[in-house]
Amino acid sequence: MTTTAVRERILQATVRTLAQQGFSRTSARAIARTGGFAPGVIYYHFDDLDDLFVATIRHTSQVRMRRYESELDDVTSAVELLRRLRQLYDEDTAEGHIAAVQELISAAPASPRLVEQVRTETGVWQDFARRTIDRLLSGTLLAGLVPVAQLAKAAVATYLGLEMLTHLDPGRTDPHALFDAAAPAAAMLDTTRPD
Amino acid sequence: MTTTAVRERILQATVRTLAQQGFSRTSARAIARTGGFAPGVIYYHFDDLDDLFVATIRHTSQVRMRRYESELDDVTSAVELLRRLRQLYDEDTAEGHIAAVQELISAAPASPRLVEQVRTETGVWQDFARRTIDRLLSGTLLAGLVPVAQLAKAAVATYLGLEMLTHLDPGRTDPHALFDAAAPAAAMLDTTRPD
Repeated sequence: MTTTAVRERILQATVRTLAQQGFSRTSARAIARTGGFAPGVIYYHFDDLDDLFVATIRHTSQVRMRRYESELDDVTSAVELLRRLRQLYDEDTAEGHIAAVQELISAAPASPRLVEQVRTETGVWQDFARRTIDRLLSGTLLAGLVPVAQLAKAAVATYLGLEMLTHLDPGRTDPHALFDAAAPAAAMLDTTRPD
Repeated sequence: MTTTAVRERILQATVRTLAQQGFSRTSARAIARTGGFAPGVIYYHFDDLDDLFVATIRHTSQVRMRRYESELDDVTSAVELLRRLRQLYDEDTAEGHIAAVQELISAAPASPRLVEQVRTETGVWQDFARRTIDRLLSGTLLAGLVPVAQLAKAAVATYLGLEMLTHLDPGRTDPHALFDAAAPAAAMLDTTRPD
Protein backbone atom coordinates (compact mmCIF):
# COMPACT_ATOMS: atom_id res chain seq x y z
CA MET A 1 0.00 0.00 0.00
CA THR A 2 1.14 3.55 -0.65
CA THR A 3 1.78 5.92 2.27
CA THR A 4 -1.36 7.85 1.36
CA ALA A 5 -3.46 4.70 1.34
CA VAL A 6 -2.13 3.62 4.74
CA ARG A 7 -2.72 7.08 6.24
CA GLU A 8 -6.26 7.05 4.91
CA ARG A 9 -6.86 3.59 6.35
CA ILE A 10 -5.65 4.79 9.77
CA LEU A 11 -7.84 7.90 9.58
CA GLN A 12 -10.92 5.87 8.64
CA ALA A 13 -10.24 3.44 11.49
CA THR A 14 -9.95 6.41 13.88
CA VAL A 15 -13.32 7.80 12.76
CA ARG A 16 -14.97 4.41 13.23
CA THR A 17 -13.37 3.84 16.65
CA LEU A 18 -14.36 7.31 17.91
CA ALA A 19 -17.92 6.77 16.67
CA GLN A 20 -18.30 3.28 18.13
CA GLN A 21 -16.32 3.49 21.37
CA GLY A 22 -16.08 7.17 22.30
CA PHE A 23 -13.01 9.34 22.77
CA SER A 24 -11.90 7.92 26.11
CA ARG A 25 -11.58 4.40 24.66
CA THR A 26 -9.93 5.44 21.39
CA SER A 27 -6.40 4.30 22.13
CA ALA A 28 -3.81 3.40 19.50
CA ARG A 29 -4.53 -0.23 20.30
CA ALA A 30 -8.29 0.19 19.79
CA ILE A 31 -7.79 2.03 16.47
CA ALA A 32 -5.38 -0.67 15.29
CA ARG A 33 -7.90 -3.37 16.18
CA THR A 34 -10.65 -1.58 14.24
CA GLY A 35 -8.42 -1.14 11.19
CA GLY A 36 -6.73 -4.54 11.29
CA PHE A 37 -3.15 -3.29 11.50
CA ALA A 38 -0.42 -3.17 14.16
CA PRO A 39 -0.48 -0.22 16.63
CA GLY A 40 3.08 0.70 15.58
CA VAL A 41 1.80 1.63 12.10
CA ILE A 42 0.04 4.65 13.66
CA TYR A 43 3.27 6.02 15.11
CA TYR A 44 5.07 5.57 11.81
CA HIS A 45 2.58 7.95 10.17
CA PHE A 46 1.64 10.29 13.04
CA ASP A 47 3.69 11.92 15.81
CA ASP A 48 1.23 11.00 18.55
CA LEU A 49 -2.50 10.59 19.16
CA ASP A 50 -3.03 14.38 19.30
CA ASP A 51 -1.50 14.64 15.82
CA LEU A 52 -3.73 11.78 14.64
CA PHE A 53 -6.89 13.40 16.06
CA VAL A 54 -6.08 16.73 14.40
CA ALA A 55 -5.60 14.88 11.08
CA THR A 56 -8.82 12.92 11.68
CA ILE A 57 -11.07 15.95 12.07
CA ARG A 58 -9.49 17.49 8.96
CA HIS A 59 -9.93 14.22 7.06
CA THR A 60 -13.58 13.57 7.94
CA SER A 61 -14.46 17.23 7.34
CA GLN A 62 -12.80 17.14 3.89
CA VAL A 63 -14.39 13.84 2.90
CA ARG A 64 -17.85 15.12 3.83
CA MET A 65 -17.18 18.51 2.20
CA ARG A 66 -16.42 16.77 -1.12
CA ARG A 67 -19.77 14.95 -0.88
CA TYR A 68 -21.67 18.10 0.05
CA GLU A 69 -20.03 20.04 -2.80
CA SER A 70 -20.73 17.39 -5.42
CA GLU A 71 -24.35 16.98 -4.28
CA LEU A 72 -25.18 20.67 -3.86
CA ASP A 73 -23.11 22.55 -6.43
CA ASP A 74 -25.83 22.58 -9.09
CA VAL A 75 -28.80 23.08 -6.74
CA THR A 76 -30.70 26.34 -7.07
CA SER A 77 -34.10 25.19 -5.75
CA ALA A 78 -34.75 25.35 -2.00
CA VAL A 79 -36.99 22.29 -2.11
CA GLU A 80 -34.28 20.26 -3.87
CA LEU A 81 -31.64 21.62 -1.46
CA LEU A 82 -33.63 20.37 1.53
CA ARG A 83 -34.12 16.96 -0.07
CA ARG A 84 -30.40 16.53 -0.65
CA LEU A 85 -29.40 17.95 2.77
CA ARG A 86 -31.56 15.31 4.39
CA GLN A 87 -29.75 12.55 2.47
CA LEU A 88 -26.36 14.04 3.28
CA TYR A 89 -27.27 14.25 6.98
CA ASP A 90 -28.22 10.55 6.89
CA GLU A 91 -24.84 9.77 5.33
CA ASP A 92 -23.11 11.89 8.02
CA THR A 93 -24.79 9.71 10.62
CA ALA A 94 -24.24 6.36 8.91
CA GLU A 95 -20.53 6.95 8.27
CA GLY A 96 -19.85 7.85 11.90
CA HIS A 97 -18.92 11.41 10.93
CA ILE A 98 -21.35 13.04 13.39
CA ALA A 99 -20.39 10.87 16.35
CA ALA A 100 -16.65 11.18 15.64
CA VAL A 101 -16.82 14.98 15.31
CA GLN A 102 -18.78 15.27 18.55
CA GLU A 103 -16.25 13.11 20.39
CA LEU A 104 -13.36 15.19 19.04
CA ILE A 105 -15.08 18.50 19.89
CA SER A 106 -15.75 17.23 23.41
CA ALA A 107 -12.07 16.38 23.78
CA ALA A 108 -10.81 19.55 22.11
CA PRO A 109 -10.52 21.85 25.18
CA ALA A 110 -7.56 19.75 26.35
CA SER A 111 -5.70 20.17 23.03
CA PRO A 112 -4.88 23.62 21.58
CA ARG A 113 -4.11 22.07 18.19
CA LEU A 114 -7.46 20.31 18.08
CA VAL A 115 -9.27 23.54 19.02
CA GLU A 116 -7.45 25.32 16.20
CA GLN A 117 -8.36 22.60 13.68
CA VAL A 118 -12.03 22.62 14.74
CA ARG A 119 -11.98 26.39 14.24
CA THR A 120 -10.46 26.00 10.76
CA GLU A 121 -13.00 23.36 9.68
CA THR A 122 -15.88 25.40 11.09
CA GLY A 123 -14.68 28.32 8.94
CA VAL A 124 -14.55 26.11 5.83
CA TRP A 125 -18.15 24.99 6.42
CA GLN A 126 -19.30 28.57 7.06
CA ASP A 127 -17.79 29.60 3.69
CA PHE A 128 -19.52 26.69 2.00
CA ALA A 129 -22.86 27.57 3.66
CA ARG A 130 -22.39 31.16 2.52
CA ARG A 131 -21.84 30.19 -1.13
CA THR A 132 -24.81 27.81 -1.03
CA ILE A 133 -27.14 30.41 0.48
CA ASP A 134 -25.94 33.06 -2.01
CA ARG A 135 -26.72 30.76 -4.93
CA LEU A 136 -30.07 29.81 -3.45
CA LEU A 137 -31.21 33.39 -2.91
CA SER A 138 -29.92 34.66 -6.24
CA GLY A 139 -32.84 36.12 -8.16
CA THR A 140 -35.36 35.67 -5.31
CA LEU A 141 -37.14 38.34 -3.31
CA LEU A 142 -34.70 37.76 -0.45
CA ALA A 143 -31.48 38.42 -2.43
CA GLY A 144 -29.73 41.44 -0.88
CA LEU A 145 -32.08 41.48 2.13
CA VAL A 146 -30.66 38.53 4.04
CA PRO A 147 -27.40 38.94 6.02
CA VAL A 148 -25.82 35.92 4.33
CA ALA A 149 -22.55 35.72 6.29
CA GLN A 150 -24.38 35.66 9.63
CA LEU A 151 -27.00 33.25 8.34
CA ALA A 152 -24.18 30.94 7.24
CA LYS A 153 -22.66 31.06 10.75
CA ALA A 154 -26.06 30.37 12.28
CA ALA A 155 -26.56 27.43 9.89
CA VAL A 156 -23.27 25.84 10.98
CA ALA A 157 -24.07 26.50 14.67
CA THR A 158 -27.49 24.88 14.19
CA TYR A 159 -25.93 21.86 12.51
CA LEU A 160 -23.44 21.48 15.40
CA GLY A 161 -26.21 21.82 17.98
CA LEU A 162 -28.33 19.23 16.18
CA GLU A 163 -25.31 16.93 16.01
CA MET A 164 -24.84 17.37 19.75
CA LEU A 165 -28.47 16.55 20.53
CA THR A 166 -28.52 13.62 18.11
CA HIS A 167 -25.29 12.25 19.52
CA LEU A 168 -26.48 12.54 23.14
CA ASP A 169 -29.91 11.17 22.53
CA PRO A 170 -30.08 9.25 19.24
CA GLY A 171 -33.55 7.85 19.85
CA ARG A 172 -35.40 11.06 20.51
CA THR A 173 -33.88 13.80 18.40
CA ASP A 174 -35.21 13.57 14.88
CA PRO A 175 -33.54 15.96 12.46
CA HIS A 176 -35.93 14.73 9.77
CA ALA A 177 -38.78 16.53 11.53
CA LEU A 178 -36.84 19.79 11.13
CA PHE A 179 -36.35 19.14 7.41
CA ASP A 180 -40.08 18.43 7.08
CA ALA A 181 -40.94 21.61 8.95
CA ALA A 182 -38.76 23.70 6.63
CA ALA A 183 -40.39 22.29 3.47
CA PRO A 184 -43.27 24.82 3.17
CA ALA A 185 -40.90 27.78 3.56
CA ALA A 186 -38.60 26.28 0.91
CA ALA A 187 -41.52 25.83 -1.49
CA MET A 188 -42.60 29.44 -0.87
CA LEU A 189 -39.08 30.74 -1.54
CA ASP A 190 -38.95 28.81 -4.83
CA THR A 191 -42.14 30.47 -6.06
CA THR A 192 -40.45 33.89 -5.83
CA ARG A 193 -37.70 32.82 -8.25
CA PRO A 194 -37.94 33.98 -11.86
CA ASP A 195 -37.70 31.19 -14.48
CA MET B 1 -26.89 27.65 57.12
CA THR B 2 -29.95 25.66 56.08
CA THR B 3 -29.58 22.48 54.08
CA THR B 4 -30.97 24.26 51.02
CA ALA B 5 -28.49 27.11 51.38
CA VAL B 6 -25.57 24.70 51.68
CA ARG B 7 -26.72 22.67 48.68
CA GLU B 8 -27.03 25.86 46.64
CA ARG B 9 -23.56 26.95 47.69
CA ILE B 10 -22.13 23.60 46.57
CA LEU B 11 -23.98 23.80 43.25
CA GLN B 12 -22.74 27.34 42.59
CA ALA B 13 -19.17 26.29 43.43
CA THR B 14 -19.53 23.37 41.00
CA VAL B 15 -20.68 25.68 38.18
CA ARG B 16 -17.75 28.02 38.80
CA THR B 17 -15.21 25.19 39.01
CA LEU B 18 -16.48 23.57 35.79
CA ALA B 19 -16.37 26.94 34.02
CA GLN B 20 -12.90 27.90 35.24
CA GLN B 21 -11.09 24.57 35.31
CA GLY B 22 -12.94 22.23 32.97
CA PHE B 23 -14.60 18.91 33.72
CA SER B 24 -11.45 16.83 34.08
CA ARG B 25 -10.17 19.03 36.92
CA THR B 26 -13.50 19.37 38.72
CA SER B 27 -12.82 17.07 41.67
CA ALA B 28 -14.55 17.27 45.05
CA ARG B 29 -11.39 18.92 46.36
CA ALA B 30 -11.38 21.57 43.60
CA ILE B 31 -15.08 22.35 44.13
CA ALA B 32 -14.54 22.62 47.89
CA ARG B 33 -11.62 25.01 47.34
CA THR B 34 -13.75 27.20 45.04
CA GLY B 35 -16.61 27.28 47.53
CA GLY B 36 -14.54 27.60 50.70
CA PHE B 37 -15.88 24.50 52.46
CA ALA B 38 -14.53 21.04 53.35
CA PRO B 39 -14.74 18.33 50.63
CA GLY B 40 -16.73 16.13 53.04
CA VAL B 41 -19.63 18.60 52.89
CA ILE B 42 -20.24 17.54 49.29
CA TYR B 43 -20.70 13.89 50.25
CA TYR B 44 -23.08 14.81 53.04
CA HIS B 45 -25.42 16.40 50.48
CA PHE B 46 -24.79 14.31 47.35
CA ASP B 47 -24.26 10.56 46.81
CA ASP B 48 -21.26 11.03 44.56
CA LEU B 49 -19.89 13.38 41.88
CA ASP B 50 -22.26 11.97 39.24
CA ASP B 51 -25.18 12.86 41.51
CA LEU B 52 -23.70 16.33 42.02
CA PHE B 53 -23.22 16.91 38.27
CA VAL B 54 -26.80 15.86 37.52
CA ALA B 55 -28.01 18.30 40.21
CA THR B 56 -25.70 21.00 38.82
CA ILE B 57 -27.06 20.93 35.28
CA ARG B 58 -30.62 21.01 36.68
CA HIS B 59 -29.69 23.87 39.00
CA THR B 60 -27.98 26.11 36.44
CA SER B 61 -30.72 25.43 33.90
CA GLN B 62 -33.43 26.38 36.44
CA VAL B 63 -31.61 29.52 37.61
CA ARG B 64 -31.20 30.73 34.03
CA MET B 65 -34.78 29.74 33.14
CA ARG B 66 -36.12 31.95 35.96
CA ARG B 67 -34.11 34.88 34.55
CA TYR B 68 -35.24 34.21 30.98
CA GLU B 69 -38.88 33.92 32.08
CA SER B 70 -38.83 37.11 34.13
CA GLU B 71 -37.11 39.06 31.36
CA LEU B 72 -39.15 37.74 28.44
CA ASP B 73 -42.63 37.02 29.77
CA ASP B 74 -44.05 40.43 28.80
CA VAL B 75 -42.19 40.81 25.51
CA THR B 76 -44.30 40.88 22.36
CA SER B 77 -41.98 42.88 20.10
CA ALA B 78 -39.30 41.05 18.12
CA VAL B 79 -36.90 44.00 18.37
CA GLU B 80 -37.26 44.09 22.16
CA LEU B 81 -36.92 40.29 22.34
CA LEU B 82 -33.59 40.43 20.50
CA ARG B 83 -32.33 43.20 22.78
CA ARG B 84 -33.12 41.22 25.91
CA LEU B 85 -31.82 37.91 24.49
CA ARG B 86 -28.50 39.58 23.87
CA GLN B 87 -28.32 40.72 27.54
CA LEU B 88 -29.34 37.28 28.77
CA TYR B 89 -26.69 35.64 26.60
CA ASP B 90 -24.08 37.97 28.12
CA GLU B 91 -25.26 36.93 31.58
CA ASP B 92 -25.09 33.26 30.57
CA THR B 93 -21.46 33.82 29.64
CA ALA B 94 -20.51 35.95 32.66
CA GLU B 95 -22.02 33.55 35.20
CA GLY B 96 -20.15 30.57 33.79
CA HIS B 97 -23.43 28.92 32.73
CA ILE B 98 -22.35 28.40 29.11
CA ALA B 99 -18.93 26.99 29.96
CA ALA B 100 -20.30 24.73 32.73
CA VAL B 101 -23.09 23.35 30.50
CA GLN B 102 -20.62 22.65 27.70
CA GLU B 103 -18.29 20.83 30.08
CA LEU B 104 -21.17 18.74 31.43
CA ILE B 105 -22.50 17.93 27.95
CA SER B 106 -19.00 16.88 26.88
CA ALA B 107 -18.82 14.56 29.87
CA ALA B 108 -22.38 13.27 29.55
CA PRO B 109 -21.80 10.27 27.24
CA ALA B 110 -20.05 8.50 30.15
CA SER B 111 -23.05 9.00 32.49
CA PRO B 112 -26.55 7.76 31.61
CA ARG B 113 -28.06 9.92 34.37
CA LEU B 114 -26.36 13.03 33.03
CA VAL B 115 -27.55 12.27 29.48
CA GLU B 116 -31.10 11.90 30.81
CA GLN B 117 -30.89 15.21 32.71
CA VAL B 118 -29.50 17.05 29.66
CA ARG B 119 -32.43 15.65 27.67
CA THR B 120 -34.91 16.84 30.31
CA GLU B 121 -33.45 20.35 30.46
CA THR B 122 -33.31 20.57 26.65
CA GLY B 123 -37.02 19.73 26.61
CA VAL B 124 -37.79 22.45 29.18
CA TRP B 125 -35.97 25.04 27.03
CA GLN B 126 -37.72 23.85 23.87
CA ASP B 127 -41.10 24.34 25.60
CA PHE B 128 -40.04 27.81 26.73
CA ALA B 129 -38.85 28.70 23.20
CA ARG B 130 -42.17 27.47 21.85
CA ARG B 131 -44.23 29.68 24.20
CA THR B 132 -42.03 32.68 23.43
CA ILE B 133 -42.28 32.21 19.64
CA ASP B 134 -46.06 31.70 19.91
CA ARG B 135 -46.46 34.96 21.81
CA LEU B 136 -44.18 36.76 19.39
CA LEU B 137 -46.00 35.63 16.26
CA SER B 138 -49.47 36.16 17.71
CA GLY B 139 -51.29 38.62 15.49
CA THR B 140 -48.51 38.86 12.88
CA LEU B 141 -48.56 37.71 9.27
CA LEU B 142 -46.57 34.63 10.28
CA ALA B 143 -48.98 33.32 12.94
CA GLY B 144 -50.22 29.89 11.83
CA LEU B 145 -47.70 29.70 8.97
CA VAL B 146 -44.61 28.91 11.01
CA PRO B 147 -44.03 25.36 12.35
CA VAL B 148 -43.49 26.61 15.90
CA ALA B 149 -42.53 23.35 17.62
CA GLN B 150 -39.80 22.64 15.09
CA LEU B 151 -38.61 26.24 15.10
CA ALA B 152 -38.32 26.01 18.90
CA LYS B 153 -36.18 22.86 18.58
CA ALA B 154 -34.02 24.57 15.97
CA ALA B 155 -33.64 27.61 18.26
CA VAL B 156 -32.39 25.46 21.14
CA ALA B 157 -30.06 23.54 18.77
CA THR B 158 -28.69 26.86 17.47
CA TYR B 159 -28.12 28.12 21.00
CA LEU B 160 -26.25 24.91 21.90
CA GLY B 161 -24.16 25.13 18.72
CA LEU B 162 -23.30 28.76 19.44
CA GLU B 163 -22.40 27.83 23.02
CA MET B 164 -20.13 25.12 21.67
CA LEU B 165 -18.37 27.49 19.25
CA THR B 166 -18.11 30.25 21.87
CA HIS B 167 -16.75 27.83 24.44
CA LEU B 168 -14.16 26.40 22.05
CA ASP B 169 -13.05 29.68 20.62
CA PRO B 170 -14.08 32.58 22.87
CA GLY B 171 -12.08 35.20 20.98
CA ARG B 172 -13.46 34.67 17.53
CA THR B 173 -17.08 33.62 17.79
CA ASP B 174 -19.21 36.68 18.32
CA PRO B 175 -22.86 35.91 19.03
CA HIS B 176 -23.50 39.66 19.08
CA ALA B 177 -22.96 39.77 15.32
CA LEU B 178 -25.80 37.24 14.93
CA PHE B 179 -28.10 39.38 17.09
CA ASP B 180 -27.18 42.41 14.97
CA ALA B 181 -27.84 40.50 11.77
CA ALA B 182 -31.30 39.46 12.97
CA ALA B 183 -32.32 43.04 13.84
CA PRO B 184 -33.71 44.05 10.40
CA ALA B 185 -35.86 40.90 10.19
CA ALA B 186 -37.15 41.56 13.73
CA ALA B 187 -38.06 45.13 12.81
CA MET B 188 -39.85 43.91 9.70
CA LEU B 189 -41.83 41.35 11.69
CA ASP B 190 -42.91 44.03 14.17
CA THR B 191 -44.33 46.20 11.36
CA THR B 192 -46.79 43.42 10.48
CA ARG B 193 -48.28 43.45 13.99
CA PRO B 194 -51.61 45.22 14.49
CA ASP B 195 -51.61 47.85 17.26
